[in-house]
Amino acid sequence: MNLLFVTRQLGLVLLVLSLSLLAVGGWSAAQAMTGVSAETEAAKALVVTVVFGAILGCVLWWSGRGGPVQLGRREAMLLVATSWLLGAGLAAVPYFIWACLTHDAHPGHPFANPIDCYFEAMSGLTTTGATVLGHDGHMIEQLPRGLLLWRSLTQWLGGLGIVVLFVAVLPTLGVGGKRLFRVESPGPAAPGVRPRIGQTARALWLIYLTLTLVEVLALWLAGASFFDALCHTFTTLATGGFSTRDSSAGGESPAIQIILIVFMILGGINFGLYYHLTRGRFRQVWTNTELRFYIGLLAVATMIVVITILNRPLATTAAPNQPVKAAAGQALLHGAFQVVSIQTGTGFCTANFDTWGFTADAVFLALMFVGASAGSTGGGIKVIRILIMVKVFIAELERAFRPNVVRTVKVGNAVVNLDHRISTLVYILGIVVLFIVGAVLLMWFESSADCTFRTAATASAATLNNIGPGLGRVGAIENYGWFSGPSKVLLSLLMVLGRLELFAILVLLSPRFWRGE
Amino acid sequence: MNLLFVTRQLGLVLLVLSLSLLAVGGWSAAQAMTGVSAETEAAKALVVTVVFGAILGCVLWWSGRGGPVQLGRREAMLLVATSWLLGAGLAAVPYFIWACLTHDAHPGHPFANPIDCYFEAMSGLTTTGATVLGHDGHMIEQLPRGLLLWRSLTQWLGGLGIVVLFVAVLPTLGVGGKRLFRVESPGPAAPGVRPRIGQTARALWLIYLTLTLVEVLALWLAGASFFDALCHTFTTLATGGFSTRDSSAGGESPAIQIILIVFMILGGINFGLYYHLTRGRFRQVWTNTELRFYIGLLAVATMIVVITILNRPLATTAAPNQPVKAAAGQALLHGAFQVVSIQTGTGFCTANFDTWGFTADAVFLALMFVGASAGSTGGGIKVIRILIMVKVFIAELERAFRPNVVRTVKVGNAVVNLDHRISTLVYILGIVVLFIVGAVLLMWFESSADCTFRTAATASAATLNNIGPGLGRVGAIENYGWFSGPSKVLLSLLMVLGRLELFAILVLLSPRFWRGE
Repeated sequence: MNLLFVTRQLGLVLLVLSLSLLAVGGWSAAQAMTGVSAETEAAKALVVTVVFGAILGCVLWWSGRGGPVQLGRREAMLLVATSWLLGAGLAAVPYFIWACLTHDAHPGHPFANPIDCYFEAMSGLTTTGATVLGHDGHMIEQLPRGLLLWRSLTQWLGGLGIVVLFVAVLPTLGVGGKRLFRVESPGPAAPGVRPRIGQTARALWLIYLTLTLVEVLALWLAGASFFDALCHTFTTLATGGFSTRDSSAGGESPAIQIILIVFMILGGINFGLYYHLTRGRFRQVWTNTELRFYIGLLAVATMIVVITILNRPLATTAAPNQPVKAAAGQALLHGAFQVVSIQTGTGFCTANFDTWGFTADAVFLALMFVGASAGSTGGGIKVIRILIMVKVFIAELERAFRPNVVRTVKVGNAVVNLDHRISTLVYILGIVVLFIVGAVLLMWFESSADCTFRTAATASAATLNNIGPGLGRVGAIENYGWFSGPSKVLLSLLMVLGRLELFAILVLLSPRFWRGE
Repeated sequence: MNLLFVTRQLGLVLLVLSLSLLAVGGWSAAQAMTGVSAETEAAKALVVTVVFGAILGCVLWWSGRGGPVQLGRREAMLLVATSWLLGAGLAAVPYFIWACLTHDAHPGHPFANPIDCYFEAMSGLTTTGATVLGHDGHMIEQLPRGLLLWRSLTQWLGGLGIVVLFVAVLPTLGVGGKRLFRVESPGPAAPGVRPRIGQTARALWLIYLTLTLVEVLALWLAGASFFDALCHTFTTLATGGFSTRDSSAGGESPAIQIILIVFMILGGINFGLYYHLTRGRFRQVWTNTELRFYIGLLAVATMIVVITILNRPLATTAAPNQPVKAAAGQALLHGAFQVVSIQTGTGFCTANFDTWGFTADAVFLALMFVGASAGSTGGGIKVIRILIMVKVFIAELERAFRPNVVRTVKVGNAVVNLDHRISTLVYILGIVVLFIVGAVLLMWFESSADCTFRTAATASAATLNNIGPGLGRVGAIENYGWFSGPSKVLLSLLMVLGRLELFAILVLLSPRFWRGE
């Protein structure tokens, strides 16, 4: 294991993160100077973090000197895993410093606890969107804008991947870059948009940037403030789900909610398809099997949910205690919004879907696991894996009564070979096992009667699949602030396991990974 | 599809079942003649069923004449599936006729509803052990002995398999017999005890008979009545779990409970190993990987459960409302009994383990899915499949960071090839999916608040894995009588899906299975 080079590159990743912190810190300082007094502490917290991150990054960079400039597969996995685990640590520092600085104004704030800060930062980077804010009256709205912007930016950075960004910025990694890319990009699809991986990473970030600009403009034209438009764009395209308000998207106008729906859907599509679009390959996009199933599932699930909530009392997250009978238009808007938000793994809420009844519960829980497309910023198992699983099931069923007929399993035009089938099934089973372990451990850690099975199971599913809100005490109008420390550490771990698709983290437990075998 | 021959053989299976009914009916009639008045209706019900079964069997046998004497794989699967679905129907008839005959003495008896009778019969044949009796004060003890014996005998017949019995009795099926055997025998292990399949089936039934005689004798010597000894032996070795009493095994002496523990464990061991024992191949048995893990799991689970219940109030099923503090001996006895009963899929209860707390709940639910050994009478996924899954997980983990190293996956000395890995993973995922679908549908069917997630999930798991009791409203001192009709049909289906290991039933849904392709 070439630990020196990993350390050196890890230092660079922290420097890249510090640069983004610097941008937000600079903006926050400018706000503070124009007289927004609440920004003073935020600016201080951000700038101190930049200094800290820069020093730490330089130290790592310096102490990793002298190793061979070569990134093997194990090194790539270790670099990605440590980048996320340590990156979340750095991203958490501004929250903590701010809470220390404003201790008198906000006594008992969740951010005064480093574990809560780490949870929030990991939830940001992994685009989960679960928050500790809202607990005990410490609303999201109380945060200074500098921290709100940083909170949203973590999701935007984590959406395509902090290490992918790094690959795009630093083209000197050669084949190591490709390895990094593979580890961090969600889904079984191999990245092959451009012949060289640095080009691919840059092409993807360019698409991401373009979509970002379009959404900011759309939200702004629809009446959002520029700040809200920016923050919500960061967390929509990344399918993250952090909002600048405690009511999530429940207080927005229907026009804004519709724009959010559209861009959540766009965030859940394989970014490789956008690249095909820029090259005029419309047919390749239109005939894409995963895209068709993804859209089809969204449509069917929306239909089911809309039927279950039609003409029944519906409470928005902006007014959770004033349910109003949902006419067709309202039911369609809120139904579609929640379905899209859950399946893509965003986690924005416009309505308190916790009260929508058992059918809706079942649909949402199923969608959490299905998730969005491979190669997107979305969460979950990914539609293509579900497709492969179903096809392998059908093939096995046939093999039961016709053992000598070998039928190829195809998804679209691609043949799924035996190795690929096994890795898909193992991945899905791995998610199921981790989900169960997560739910059981949560119930163990939380002896309080508040953590019912409903709450524990959906908290485990919503973090592992990078969704955000679940049901029960982690529902649309609730938050994760009430969990105990051990639970928050566990949930943070589930988030990063889900975001890096298990293996990059799980291999760290394998002795063979560490031995030079 | 050679439907004629399937019909003909199905007729034979019904005739074999009618023969067993005749034996019980004869015994019941003899009892009635010696003056046991309660037996009169039971004898009538059984004899009428024998006549009905014989006629139906003959009609099927006759109407299936003229087809080619050849049993392909699809025909074997169809025969096994229809044998179980129709066999349960025949096995249910005595319950229904008896309830009709004794309508005045037992108004509102569950058996007056054909669905309940079918549920009870399917629960018997599949060795599940879930019962509708005990509901609304209709206790098991009220049943005449003839029906109690038949109820226990269905489990004994279903333990090794009604079709395997048929293969043992009728040696004329040639290669078709082997196909039948494979479809009905649990677990991925291929039957290869003897060179010819009829011999194998006979050898297994001989071992089964021997164990039966030994257990009857042991129970009788330990103080049980001969009738109880016989009935409980039938349901122990088959890992079935029907008892002659509403308190299950809770009212028995410790000696009898220990004997039951031993024979439940024996019932959960691969019967091929007993064959090795009779040939003096002790080493082959001792070094068997699955056996070691099976015993090891039982030991570890017992230890955990005993620690959680030690020195805490413990209520036996004989006195569920009088909990007594459990000293070490009591805790060990009841802990071991419940762990063995659940892991083997028997479902006998001595204590109300529903109140043992969350840790015990989690252990029991995990054991339900793990189950006993392949080639045993036990339920669940089977230890060997879990072993294979774990090894495939580890191999995949290594492949993540070392993709070019091909490591073989071995269990014991056997190499698990790619096809075998896929079928194992598909089987486990299939169980998980069916479990979830079962639980969700149950909650859908039962709108009453009594069917909590805890109840629905464990009812689904306990029927699919052929266990019997679950937690909550299907717990140790509860029963399945309160479920609605649709739920009982669903649960019956889960039982037969679990007993025939999914595929024999699921293929019936495949259009390709029916087409001559």
